[in-house]
Amino acid sequence: MPQGSVLETITAEEARRVIDAAAAKATEIGQPMDIAVVDAGGNLKAHVRMDGANIGSITIAVNKAYTAIAFQCETADLQGVTRPDGPIFGLSDAHGGRLAVFPGGIPLVRDGSIMGAVGVSTGTIEQDQEVASAGAAAY
Amino acid sequence: MPQGSVLETITAEEARRVIDAAAAKATEIGQPMDIAVVDAGGNLKAHVRMDGANIGSITIAVNKAYTAIAFQCETADLQGVTRPDGPIFGLSDAHGGRLAVFPGGIPLVRDGSIMGAVGVSTGTIEQDQEVASAGAAAY
Amino acid sequence: MPQGSVLETITAEEARRVIDAAAAKATEIGQPMDIAVVDAGGNLKAHVRMDGANIGSITIAVNKAYTAIAFQCETADLQGVTRPDGPIFGLSDAHGGRLAVFPGGIPLVRDGSIMGAVGVSTGTIEQDQEVASAGAAAY
Amino acid sequence: MPQGSVLETITAEEARRVIDAAAAKATEIGQPMDIAVVDAGGNLKAHVRMDGANIGSITIAVNKAYTAIAFQCETADLQGVTRPDGPIFGLSDAHGGRLAVFPGGIPLVRDGSIMGAVGVSTGTIEQDQEVASAGAAAY
Repeated sequence: MPQGSVLETITAEEARRVIDAAAAKATEIGQPMDIAVVDAGGNLKAHVRMDGANIGSITIAVNKAYTAIAFQCETADLQGVTRPDGPIFGLSDAHGGRLAVFPGGIPLVRDGSIMGAVGVSTGTIEQDQEVASAGAAAY
Repeated sequence: MPQGSVLETITAEEARRVIDAAAAKATEIGQPMDIAVVDAGGNLKAHVRMDGANIGSITIAVNKAYTAIAFQCETADLQGVTRPDGPIFGLSDAHGGRLAVFPGGIPLVRDGSIMGAVGVSTGTIEQDQEVASAGAAAY
Repeated sequence: MPQGSVLETITAEEARRVIDAAAAKATEIGQPMDIAVVDAGGNLKAHVRMDGANIGSITIAVNKAYTAIAFQCETADLQGVTRPDGPIFGLSDAHGGRLAVFPGGIPLVRDGSIMGAVGVSTGTIEQDQEVASAGAAAY
Repeated sequence: MPQGSVLETITAEEARRVIDAAAAKATEIGQPMDIAVVDAGGNLKAHVRMDGANIGSITIAVNKAYTAIAFQCETADLQGVTRPDGPIFGLSDAHGGRLAVFPGGIPLVRDGSIMGAVGVSTGTIEQDQEVASAGAAAY
Protein backbone atom coordinates (compact mmCIF):
# COMPACT_ATOMS: atom_id res chain seq x y z
CA MET A 1 0.00 0.00 0.00
CA PRO A 2 1.28 3.50 -0.77
CA GLN A 3 2.51 5.70 2.04
CA GLY A 4 0.09 8.50 1.37
CA SER A 5 -3.12 9.62 -0.26
CA VAL A 6 -3.86 11.51 -3.46
CA LEU A 7 -3.03 15.20 -3.25
CA GLU A 8 -6.25 17.20 -2.90
CA THR A 9 -6.61 20.60 -4.55
CA ILE A 10 -9.98 21.65 -3.18
CA THR A 11 -11.75 20.67 0.03
CA ALA A 12 -15.32 19.46 0.41
CA GLU A 13 -15.95 22.51 2.59
CA GLU A 14 -14.73 24.86 -0.14
CA ALA A 15 -16.82 23.03 -2.72
CA ARG A 16 -19.94 23.35 -0.58
CA ARG A 17 -19.27 27.07 -0.06
CA VAL A 18 -19.03 27.54 -3.85
CA ILE A 19 -22.21 25.53 -4.43
CA ASP A 20 -24.15 27.33 -1.71
CA ALA A 21 -23.16 30.75 -3.04
CA ALA A 22 -24.15 29.71 -6.55
CA ALA A 23 -27.44 28.26 -5.31
CA ALA A 24 -28.20 31.46 -3.39
CA LYS A 25 -27.75 33.47 -6.58
CA ALA A 26 -29.88 30.98 -8.52
CA THR A 27 -32.64 31.34 -5.95
CA GLU A 28 -32.31 35.12 -6.10
CA ILE A 29 -32.87 35.18 -9.85
CA GLY A 30 -35.56 32.52 -9.67
CA GLN A 31 -33.86 29.91 -11.84
CA PRO A 32 -33.06 26.48 -10.35
CA MET A 33 -29.71 25.11 -11.51
CA ASP A 34 -27.45 22.10 -11.66
CA ILE A 35 -24.19 23.08 -10.00
CA ALA A 36 -20.99 21.03 -10.08
CA VAL A 37 -17.52 21.55 -8.64
CA VAL A 38 -14.47 19.62 -9.87
CA ASP A 39 -10.88 19.57 -8.60
CA ALA A 40 -7.74 20.51 -10.54
CA GLY A 41 -7.74 17.07 -12.15
CA GLY A 42 -11.25 17.58 -13.48
CA ASN A 43 -12.74 15.01 -11.10
CA LEU A 44 -16.09 15.69 -9.42
CA LYS A 45 -15.84 17.00 -5.88
CA ALA A 46 -19.50 17.93 -5.30
CA HIS A 47 -22.75 18.38 -7.20
CA VAL A 48 -26.30 19.44 -6.49
CA ARG A 49 -29.36 19.52 -8.72
CA MET A 50 -31.66 22.17 -7.31
CA ASP A 51 -35.36 21.35 -7.28
CA GLY A 52 -36.69 22.10 -10.74
CA ALA A 53 -33.32 22.04 -12.50
CA ASN A 54 -32.86 19.92 -15.63
CA ILE A 55 -31.87 16.28 -15.50
CA GLY A 56 -30.03 16.82 -18.79
CA SER A 57 -28.01 19.55 -17.12
CA ILE A 58 -26.41 17.19 -14.61
CA THR A 59 -23.89 16.13 -17.22
CA ILE A 60 -23.69 19.60 -18.80
CA ALA A 61 -22.80 21.18 -15.46
CA VAL A 62 -20.15 18.55 -14.79
CA ASN A 63 -18.79 18.91 -18.32
CA LYS A 64 -18.66 22.70 -18.07
CA ALA A 65 -16.58 22.42 -14.91
CA TYR A 66 -14.39 19.76 -16.55
CA THR A 67 -13.93 21.90 -19.67
CA ALA A 68 -12.81 24.90 -17.60
CA ILE A 69 -10.06 22.68 -16.14
CA ALA A 70 -9.32 20.96 -19.42
CA PHE A 71 -8.60 24.18 -21.31
CA GLN A 72 -7.64 26.45 -18.41
CA CYS A 73 -10.24 29.06 -19.29
CA GLU A 74 -13.86 29.97 -18.86
CA THR A 75 -16.11 27.95 -21.13
CA ALA A 76 -17.44 31.28 -22.38
CA ASP A 77 -14.02 31.88 -23.94
CA LEU A 78 -14.50 28.84 -26.17
CA GLN A 79 -17.79 29.95 -27.66
CA GLY A 80 -16.59 32.28 -30.39
CA VAL A 81 -13.62 30.21 -31.52
CA THR A 82 -15.66 27.03 -31.89
CA ARG A 83 -18.49 28.53 -33.97
CA PRO A 84 -18.89 27.36 -37.58
CA ASP A 85 -16.56 30.07 -38.88
CA GLY A 86 -14.15 29.91 -35.93
CA PRO A 87 -10.60 28.57 -35.94
CA ILE A 88 -11.39 25.48 -33.84
CA PHE A 89 -14.87 24.61 -35.07
CA GLY A 90 -15.30 20.94 -34.30
CA LEU A 91 -13.54 21.07 -30.91
CA SER A 92 -16.67 19.97 -29.09
CA ASP A 93 -16.81 16.83 -31.22
CA ALA A 94 -13.16 15.95 -30.65
CA HIS A 95 -13.17 14.82 -27.03
CA GLY A 96 -15.70 12.01 -26.70
CA GLY A 97 -18.64 14.18 -25.70
CA ARG A 98 -17.09 15.67 -22.57
CA LEU A 99 -16.73 19.31 -23.65
CA ALA A 100 -19.15 22.20 -23.25
CA VAL A 101 -18.22 25.29 -25.28
CA PHE A 102 -20.72 27.85 -24.03
CA PRO A 103 -20.92 29.98 -20.86
CA GLY A 104 -21.30 28.60 -17.35
CA GLY A 105 -17.94 27.01 -16.52
CA ILE A 106 -15.41 29.05 -14.54
CA PRO A 107 -12.02 28.12 -13.01
CA LEU A 108 -11.44 28.52 -9.28
CA VAL A 109 -8.11 30.30 -8.90
CA ARG A 110 -5.85 30.74 -5.88
CA ASP A 111 -2.38 32.31 -5.84
CA GLY A 112 -2.02 31.99 -9.57
CA SER A 113 -3.07 28.35 -9.77
CA ILE A 114 -6.34 26.84 -10.97
CA MET A 115 -7.40 24.59 -8.09
CA GLY A 116 -10.78 23.52 -9.43
CA ALA A 117 -13.75 24.78 -11.41
CA VAL A 118 -17.48 25.33 -11.10
CA GLY A 119 -20.04 24.49 -13.78
CA VAL A 120 -23.65 25.66 -13.90
CA SER A 121 -26.47 24.66 -16.25
CA THR A 122 -30.25 24.80 -16.76
CA GLY A 123 -30.89 28.54 -17.29
CA THR A 124 -30.01 30.82 -20.16
CA ILE A 125 -26.28 31.13 -20.75
CA GLU A 126 -26.40 34.59 -19.16
CA GLN A 127 -28.01 33.11 -16.06
CA ASP A 128 -25.64 30.14 -16.00
CA GLN A 129 -22.67 32.48 -16.20
CA GLU A 130 -24.03 34.80 -13.50
CA VAL A 131 -24.64 31.92 -11.12
CA ALA A 132 -21.25 30.34 -11.83
CA SER A 133 -19.61 33.72 -11.21
CA ALA A 134 -21.34 34.00 -7.85
CA GLY A 135 -20.04 30.55 -6.98
CA ALA A 136 -16.50 31.33 -8.10
CA ALA A 137 -16.52 34.57 -6.10
CA ALA A 138 -17.15 32.57 -2.93
CA TYR A 139 -14.06 30.39 -3.40
CA MET B 1 -43.29 24.68 -24.05
CA PRO B 2 -44.86 22.14 -21.67
CA GLN B 3 -47.29 23.25 -19.00
CA GLY B 4 -45.18 22.02 -16.14
CA SER B 5 -41.87 20.64 -15.09
CA VAL B 6 -40.58 17.11 -14.58
CA LEU B 7 -42.03 15.45 -11.50
CA GLU B 8 -39.49 15.50 -8.68
CA THR B 9 -39.28 12.56 -6.29
CA ILE B 10 -36.67 13.84 -3.85
CA THR B 11 -35.76 17.39 -2.88
CA ALA B 12 -32.30 18.91 -2.73
CA GLU B 13 -32.87 19.47 0.96
CA GLU B 14 -33.67 15.79 1.52
CA ALA B 15 -30.64 14.76 -0.50
CA ARG B 16 -28.40 16.99 1.58
CA ARG B 17 -29.86 15.58 4.79
CA VAL B 18 -29.08 12.06 3.59
CA ILE B 19 -25.55 13.05 2.56
CA ASP B 20 -24.85 14.90 5.79
CA ALA B 21 -26.02 11.95 7.89
CA ALA B 22 -23.88 9.58 5.85
CA ALA B 23 -20.88 11.91 6.09
CA ALA B 24 -21.31 12.18 9.86
CA LYS B 25 -21.18 8.39 10.14
CA ALA B 26 -18.16 8.27 7.81
CA THR B 27 -16.39 10.79 10.01
CA GLU B 28 -17.34 8.81 13.11
CA ILE B 29 -15.76 5.62 11.76
CA GLY B 30 -12.78 7.51 10.35
CA GLN B 31 -13.28 6.58 6.70
CA PRO B 32 -13.82 9.37 4.15
CA MET B 33 -16.36 8.44 1.50
CA ASP B 34 -17.89 9.34 -1.84
CA ILE B 35 -21.62 9.74 -1.26
CA ALA B 36 -24.21 10.09 -4.01
CA VAL B 37 -27.99 10.48 -3.99
CA VAL B 38 -30.15 9.81 -7.05
CA ASP B 39 -33.87 10.31 -7.60
CA ALA B 40 -36.47 7.70 -8.58
CA GLY B 41 -35.36 8.07 -12.19
CA GLY B 42 -31.81 7.10 -11.26
CA ASN B 43 -30.55 10.60 -12.05
CA LEU B 44 -27.99 12.29 -9.81
CA LYS B 45 -29.50 14.68 -7.29
CA ALA B 46 -26.41 15.41 -5.17
CA HIS B 47 -22.89 14.13 -4.62
CA VAL B 48 -19.97 14.88 -2.37
CA ARG B 49 -16.46 13.45 -2.30
CA MET B 50 -15.21 13.83 1.25
CA ASP B 51 -11.58 14.88 1.65
CA GLY B 52 -9.46 11.77 1.26
CA ALA B 53 -12.11 9.69 -0.50
CA ASN B 54 -11.25 7.88 -3.74
CA ILE B 55 -11.51 9.59 -7.13
CA GLY B 56 -12.43 6.21 -8.57
CA SER B 57 -15.30 5.96 -6.11
CA ILE B 58 -17.10 8.96 -7.60
CA THR B 59 -18.48 6.77 -10.32
CA ILE B 60 -18.84 3.73 -8.07
CA ALA B 61 -20.97 5.68 -5.57
CA VAL B 62 -23.17 7.09 -8.32
CA ASN B 63 -23.48 3.65 -9.90
CA LYS B 64 -24.39 2.02 -6.58
CA ALA B 65 -27.20 4.51 -6.12
CA TYR B 66 -28.28 4.04 -9.73
CA THR B 67 -28.20 0.26 -9.37
CA ALA B 68 -30.42 0.39 -6.27
CA ILE B 69 -33.02 2.25 -8.35
CA ALA B 70 -32.43 0.18 -11.44
CA PHE B 71 -33.21 -3.12 -9.73
CA GLN B 72 -35.36 -1.87 -6.84
CA CYS B 73 -33.17 -3.45 -4.17
CA GLU B 74 -30.05 -2.94 -2.15
CA THR B 75 -26.90 -3.52 -4.17
CA ALA B 76 -25.91 -6.00 -1.45
CA ASP B 77 -28.81 -8.18 -2.61
CA LEU B 78 -27.15 -8.54 -6.01
CA GLN B 79 -23.84 -9.84 -4.76
CA GLY B 80 -24.62 -13.52 -4.34
CA VAL B 81 -26.74 -13.91 -7.43
CA THR B 82 -24.14 -12.33 -9.71
CA ARG B 83 -21.18 -14.43 -8.61
CA PRO B 84 -19.80 -16.95 -11.14
CA ASP B 85 -22.02 -19.74 -9.77
CA GLY B 86 -25.08 -17.48 -9.39
CA PRO B 87 -28.19 -17.34 -11.59
CA ILE B 88 -27.42 -13.90 -13.08
CA PHE B 89 -23.66 -14.07 -13.34
CA GLY B 90 -22.71 -11.53 -15.98
CA LEU B 91 -25.27 -8.93 -14.93
CA SER B 92 -22.56 -6.38 -14.21
CA ASP B 93 -21.37 -6.65 -17.82
CA ALA B 94 -24.86 -6.22 -19.23
CA HIS B 95 -25.48 -2.51 -18.74
CA GLY B 96 -22.58 -0.57 -20.22
CA GLY B 97 -20.49 -0.32 -17.08
CA ARG B 98 -23.14 1.39 -14.92
CA LEU B 99 -23.90 -1.36 -12.41
CA ALA B 100 -22.30 -2.07 -9.03
CA VAL B 101 -23.20 -5.45 -7.53
CA PHE B 102 -21.69 -5.22 -4.07
CA PRO B 103 -22.84 -3.48 -0.86
CA GLY B 104 -23.20 0.28 -0.47
CA GLY B 105 -26.30 1.19 -2.49
CA ILE B 106 -29.65 1.48 -0.65
CA PRO B 107 -33.09 2.66 -1.81
CA LEU B 108 -34.77 5.60 -0.06
CA VAL B 109 -38.33 4.49 0.67
CA ARG B 110 -41.42 6.46 1.70
CA ASP B 111 -44.94 5.08 2.11
CA GLY B 112 -44.04 1.96 0.23
CA SER B 113 -42.47 3.75 -2.74
CA ILE B 114 -38.81 4.02 -3.68
CA MET B 115 -38.23 7.76 -4.06
CA GLY B 116 -34.48 7.69 -4.60
CA ALA B 117 -31.32 5.92 -3.48
CA VAL B 118 -28.01 6.56 -1.78
CA GLY B 119 -24.69 5.08 -2.84
CA VAL B 120 -21.46 5.06 -0.83
CA SER B 121 -17.95 4.00 -1.83
CA THR B 122 -14.27 4.13 -0.76
CA GLY B 123 -14.25 2.00 2.40
CA THR B 124 -14.67 -1.72 2.88
CA ILE B 125 -18.06 -3.02 1.81
CA GLU B 126 -19.06 -3.26 5.48
CA GLN B 127 -18.15 0.41 5.97
CA ASP B 128 -19.84 1.45 2.74
CA GLN B 129 -23.02 -0.35 3.78
CA GLU B 130 -22.93 1.11 7.30
CA VAL B 131 -22.52 4.65 6.00
CA ALA B 132 -25.20 4.21 3.34
CA SER B 133 -27.55 2.87 6.01
CA ALA B 134 -26.94 5.92 8.17
CA GLY B 135 -27.77 8.10 5.17
CA ALA B 136 -30.92 6.16 4.34
CA ALA B 137 -32.08 6.34 7.95
CA ALA B 138 -32.03 10.14 7.74
CA TYR B 139 -34.41 10.20 4.79
CA MET C 1 -9.38 34.46 -18.81
CA PRO C 2 -8.30 33.06 -15.44
CA GLN C 3 -5.29 34.51 -13.67
CA GLY C 4 -3.39 31.27 -13.51
CA SER C 5 -2.93 27.77 -14.86
CA VAL C 6 -3.95 24.36 -13.59
CA LEU C 7 -1.86 23.17 -10.63
CA GLU C 8 0.60 20.52 -11.81
CA THR C 9 1.48 17.57 -9.58
CA ILE C 10 4.19 15.95 -11.69
CA THR C 11 6.54 17.45 -14.25
CA ALA C 12 7.24 16.19 -17.76
CA GLU C 13 10.86 15.72 -16.72
CA GLU C 14 9.85 13.54 -13.76
CA ALA C 15 7.50 11.54 -15.97
CA ARG C 16 10.25 10.91 -18.48
CA ARG C 17 12.62 9.83 -15.72
CA VAL C 18 10.04 7.30 -14.51
CA ILE C 19 9.42 6.05 -18.04
CA ASP C 20 13.11 5.79 -18.86
CA ALA C 21 13.82 3.81 -15.68
CA ALA C 22 10.92 1.50 -16.40
CA ALA C 23 12.03 1.06 -20.01
CA ALA C 24 15.57 0.29 -18.90
CA LYS C 25 14.26 -2.48 -16.66
CA ALA C 26 12.02 -3.76 -19.46
CA THR C 27 15.03 -3.92 -21.77
CA GLU C 28 17.05 -5.68 -19.09
CA ILE C 29 14.46 -8.44 -18.73
CA GLY C 30 13.89 -8.61 -22.47
CA GLN C 31 10.20 -7.74 -22.44
CA PRO C 32 9.03 -4.63 -24.34
CA MET C 33 6.29 -2.72 -22.52
CA ASP C 34 3.68 0.00 -22.73
CA ILE C 35 4.47 2.50 -19.99
CA ALA C 36 2.17 5.35 -18.93
CA VAL C 37 2.45 8.07 -16.30
CA VAL C 38 -0.56 10.02 -15.04
CA ASP C 39 -0.78 12.96 -12.64
CA ALA C 40 -2.67 13.10 -9.33
CA GLY C 41 -5.89 13.76 -11.22
CA GLY C 42 -5.46 10.59 -13.24
CA ASN C 43 -4.74 12.51 -16.46
CA LEU C 44 -2.05 11.26 -18.85
CA LYS C 45 1.28 13.04 -18.49
CA ALA C 46 3.41 10.80 -20.73
CA HIS C 47 3.31 7.46 -22.49
CA VAL C 48 5.57 5.30 -24.58
CA ARG C 49 4.96 2.03 -26.37
CA MET C 50 8.29 0.28 -26.66
CA ASP C 51 9.00 -1.49 -29.93
CA GLY C 52 7.29 -4.87 -29.79
CA ALA C 53 4.87 -3.96 -26.98
CA ASN C 54 1.16 -4.69 -27.38
CA ILE C 55 -1.22 -2.22 -29.00
CA GLY C 56 -3.93 -3.47 -26.64
CA SER C 57 -1.69 -2.60 -23.72
CA ILE C 58 -1.74 1.12 -24.54
CA THR C 59 -5.10 1.44 -22.82
CA ILE C 60 -4.29 -1.15 -20.16
CA ALA C 61 -1.16 0.75 -19.12
CA VAL C 62 -3.05 4.04 -18.98
CA ASN C 63 -5.89 2.39 -17.05
CA LYS C 64 -3.50 0.77 -14.59
CA ALA C 65 -1.99 4.16 -13.82
CA TYR C 66 -5.47 5.71 -13.58
CA THR C 67 -6.67 2.93 -11.28
CA ALA C 68 -3.72 3.43 -8.92
CA ILE C 69 -4.81 7.08 -8.58
CA ALA C 70 -8.50 6.27 -8.49
CA PHE C 71 -8.22 3.90 -5.55
CA GLN C 72 -5.04 5.20 -3.93
CA CYS C 73 -3.31 1.84 -4.01
CA GLU C 74 -1.31 -0.48 -6.20
CA THR C 75 -3.48 -2.25 -8.75
CA ALA C 76 -2.02 -5.48 -7.34
CA ASP C 77 -3.91 -4.76 -4.11
CA LEU C 78 -7.21 -4.98 -5.99
CA GLN C 79 -6.61 -8.43 -7.43
CA GLY C 80 -7.66 -10.60 -4.52
CA VAL C 81 -10.66 -8.56 -3.42
CA THR C 82 -12.15 -8.46 -6.92
CA ARG C 83 -11.92 -12.18 -7.64
CA PRO C 84 -15.17 -14.15 -7.99
CA ASP C 85 -15.28 -14.93 -4.28
CA GLY C 86 -13.95 -11.54 -3.16
CA PRO C 87 -15.87 -8.79 -1.38
CA ILE C 88 -15.88 -6.40 -4.36
CA PHE C 89 -16.19 -8.83 -7.24
CA GLY C 90 -17.66 -6.79 -10.06
CA LEU C 91 -15.62 -3.64 -9.34
CA SER C 92 -13.92 -3.78 -12.71
CA ASP C 93 -17.32 -3.69 -14.43
CA ALA C 94 -18.57 -0.73 -12.39
CA HIS C 95 -16.55 2.12 -13.85
CA GLY C 96 -17.14 2.21 -17.57
CA GLY C 97 -14.20 0.06 -18.56
CA ARG C 98 -11.49 2.25 -17.07
CA LEU C 99 -10.26 0.00 -14.25
CA ALA C 100 -7.49 -2.60 -14.26
CA VAL C 101 -7.46 -4.85 -11.20
CA PHE C 102 -4.25 -6.79 -11.66
CA PRO C 103 -0.58 -5.92 -11.05
CA GLY C 104 1.33 -3.21 -12.92
CA GLY C 105 -0.05 0.09 -11.58
CA ILE C 106 1.84 1.86 -8.78
CA PRO C 107 1.33 5.29 -7.15
CA LEU C 108 4.16 7.82 -7.19
CA VAL C 109 4.43 9.16 -3.64
CA ARG C 110 6.24 12.20 -2.28
CA ASP C 111 6.10 13.52 1.28
CA GLY C 112 3.01 11.49 2.07
CA SER C 113 1.03 12.53 -0.99
CA ILE C 114 0.30 10.57 -4.15
CA MET C 115 1.45 12.89 -6.95
CA GLY C 116 0.87 10.57 -9.89
CA ALA C 117 1.11 6.93 -10.90
CA VAL C 118 2.85 4.65 -13.37
CA GLY C 119 1.17 1.84 -15.28
CA VAL C 120 2.92 -0.93 -17.21
CA SER C 121 1.48 -3.61 -19.48
CA THR C 122 2.39 -6.25 -22.10
CA GLY C 123 4.39 -8.78 -20.08
CA THR C 124 3.33 -11.22 -17.40
CA ILE C 125 1.91 -9.57 -14.31
CA GLU C 126 5.16 -10.31 -12.49
CA GLN C 127 7.10 -8.55 -15.25
CA ASP C 128 4.64 -5.66 -15.39
CA GLN C 129 4.93 -5.18 -11.64
CA GLU C 130 8.73 -5.39 -11.71
CA VAL C 131 8.99 -2.80 -14.47
CA ALA C 132 6.46 -0.48 -12.82
CA SER C 133 8.39 -0.76 -9.56
CA ALA C 134 11.60 0.22 -11.32
CA GLY C 135 9.79 3.24 -12.73
CA ALA C 136 8.31 4.23 -9.38
CA ALA C 137 11.70 3.92 -7.70
CA ALA C 138 13.09 6.55 -10.06
CA TYR C 139 10.48 9.15 -9.08
CA MET D 1 1.00 -18.54 -30.45
CA PRO D 2 1.76 -16.70 -33.71
CA GLN D 3 5.18 -16.97 -35.32
CA GLY D 4 5.92 -13.28 -35.05
CA SER D 5 4.83 -9.95 -33.69
CA VAL D 6 2.70 -7.16 -35.09
CA LEU D 7 4.48 -5.22 -37.85
CA GLU D 8 5.79 -1.94 -36.45
CA THR D 9 5.77 1.15 -38.66
CA ILE D 10 7.51 3.62 -36.39
CA THR D 11 10.05 3.04 -33.63
CA ALA D 12 9.95 4.45 -30.11
CA GLU D 13 13.21 6.20 -30.90
CA GLU D 14 11.71 7.89 -33.95
CA ALA D 15 8.64 8.88 -31.95
CA ARG D 16 10.80 10.43 -29.27
CA ARG D 17 12.81 12.32 -31.88
CA VAL D 18 9.58 13.75 -33.34
CA ILE D 19 8.29 14.68 -29.87
CA ASP D 20 11.56 16.25 -28.80
CA ALA D 21 11.74 18.37 -31.97
CA ALA D 22 8.15 19.47 -31.50
CA ALA D 23 8.75 20.25 -27.81
CA ALA D 24 11.84 22.28 -28.69
CA LYS D 25 9.77 24.39 -31.09
CA ALA D 26 7.02 24.74 -28.47
CA THR D 27 9.58 25.97 -25.95
CA GLU D 28 11.02 28.36 -28.54
CA ILE D 29 7.65 30.00 -29.15
CA GLY D 30 6.75 29.91 -25.44
CA GLN D 31 3.67 27.73 -25.73
CA PRO D 32 3.58 24.42 -23.82
CA MET D 33 1.87 21.66 -25.81
CA ASP D 34 0.40 18.20 -25.71
CA ILE D 35 2.26 16.16 -28.34
CA ALA D 36 1.24 12.69 -29.51
CA VAL D 37 2.69 10.28 -32.07
CA VAL D 38 0.70 7.38 -33.51
CA ASP D 39 1.76 4.59 -35.84
CA ALA D 40 0.31 3.70 -39.26
CA GLY D 41 -2.51 1.85 -37.48
CA GLY D 42 -3.50 5.01 -35.67
CA ASN D 43 -2.43 3.56 -32.32
CA LEU D 44 -0.56 5.67 -29.78
CA LYS D 45 3.21 5.22 -29.86
CA ALA D 46 4.21 8.05 -27.51
CA HIS D 47 2.77 11.13 -25.82
CA VAL D 48 3.95 13.93 -23.61
CA ARG D 49 2.03 16.72 -21.91
CA MET D 50 4.50 19.56 -21.44
CA ASP D 51 4.27 21.43 -18.15
CA GLY D 52 1.49 23.96 -18.49
CA ALA D 53 -0.23 22.30 -21.46
CA ASN D 54 -3.97 21.59 -21.34
CA ILE D 55 -5.39 18.43 -19.80
CA GLY D 56 -8.16 18.64 -22.38
CA SER D 57 -5.58 18.62 -25.13
CA ILE D 58 -4.33 15.13 -24.26
CA THR D 59 -7.22 13.64 -26.16
CA ILE D 60 -7.23 16.36 -28.81
CA ALA D 61 -3.55 15.77 -29.63
CA VAL D 62 -4.06 12.01 -29.82
CA ASN D 63 -7.17 12.50 -31.95
CA LYS D 64 -5.38 14.89 -34.32
CA ALA D 65 -2.68 12.30 -34.89
CA TYR D 66 -5.30 9.57 -35.29
CA THR D 67 -7.30 11.72 -37.73
CA ALA D 68 -4.20 12.33 -39.88
CA ILE D 69 -3.82 8.55 -40.23
CA ALA D 70 -7.54 7.92 -40.52
CA PHE D 71 -7.97 10.19 -43.54
CA GLN D 72 -4.41 10.16 -44.89
CA CYS D 73 -4.07 13.93 -44.79
CA GLU D 74 -3.22 16.82 -42.55
CA THR D 75 -6.07 17.68 -40.19
CA ALA D 76 -5.83 21.22 -41.56
CA ASP D 77 -7.07 19.82 -44.88
CA LEU D 78 -10.33 18.79 -43.23
CA GLN D 79 -11.21 22.20 -41.86
CA GLY D 80 -12.83 23.83 -44.87
CA VAL D 81 -14.67 20.76 -46.11
CA THR D 82 -16.26 20.05 -42.73
CA ARG D 83 -17.63 23.55 -42.11
CA PRO D 84 -21.42 23.97 -42.22
CA ASP D 85 -21.36 24.88 -45.90
CA GLY D 86 -18.78 22.23 -46.81
CA PRO D 87 -19.34 18.92 -48.58
CA ILE D 88 -18.66 16.73 -45.54
CA PHE D 89 -20.14 18.87 -42.78
CA GLY D 90 -20.91 16.49 -39.93
CA LEU D 91 -17.79 14.37 -40.38
CA SER D 92 -16.61 15.18 -36.86
CA ASP D 93 -19.81 13.69 -35.46
CA ALA D 94 -19.51 10.52 -37.49
CA HIS D 95 -16.73 8.67 -35.67
CA GLY D 96 -17.60 8.46 -32.00
CA GLY D 97 -15.78 11.58 -30.88
CA ARG D 98 -12.34 10.58 -32.18
CA LEU D 99 -11.86 13.10 -34.99
CA ALA D 100 -10.27 16.55 -34.91
CA VAL D 101 -10.88 18.63 -38.04
CA PHE D 102 -8.64 21.62 -37.44
CA PRO D 103 -4.87 22.15 -37.79
CA GLY D 104 -2.23 20.37 -35.74
CA GLY D 105 -2.23 16.80 -37.07
CA ILE D 106 0.38 15.86 -39.70
CA PRO D 107 1.30 12.50 -41.29
CA LEU D 108 4.86 11.21 -41.00
CA VAL D 109 5.88 10.12 -44.50
CA ARG D 110 8.77 7.99 -45.74
CA ASP D 111 9.38 6.85 -49.30
CA GLY D 112 5.84 7.71 -50.25
CA SER D 113 4.19 5.84 -47.38
CA ILE D 114 2.52 7.27 -44.29
CA MET D 115 4.27 5.53 -41.41
CA GLY D 116 2.63 7.44 -38.55
CA ALA D 117 1.43 10.89 -37.56
CA VAL D 118 2.03 13.62 -35.03
CA GLY D 119 -0.71 15.61 -33.29
CA VAL D 120 -0.24 18.83 -31.32
CA SER D 121 -2.71 20.78 -29.19
CA THR D 122 -3.01 23.55 -26.58
CA GLY D 123 -1.93 26.66 -28.52
CA THR D 124 -3.64 28.53 -31.32
CA ILE D 125 -4.13 26.47 -34.45
CA GLU D 126 -1.24 28.35 -36.06
CA GLN D 127 1.01 27.43 -33.15
CA ASP D 128 -0.24 23.83 -33.09
CA GLN D 129 0.49 23.50 -36.81
CA GLU D 130 3.95 25.10 -36.49
CA VAL D 131 4.93 22.78 -33.66
CA ALA D 132 3.53 19.70 -35.42
CA SER D 133 5.48 20.69 -38.55
CA ALA D 134 8.68 20.94 -36.56
CA GLY D 135 8.01 17.47 -35.22
CA ALA D 136 7.23 16.02 -38.63
CA ALA D 137 10.40 17.56 -40.07
CA ALA D 138 12.46 15.59 -37.55
CA TYR D 139 11.06 12.26 -38.71
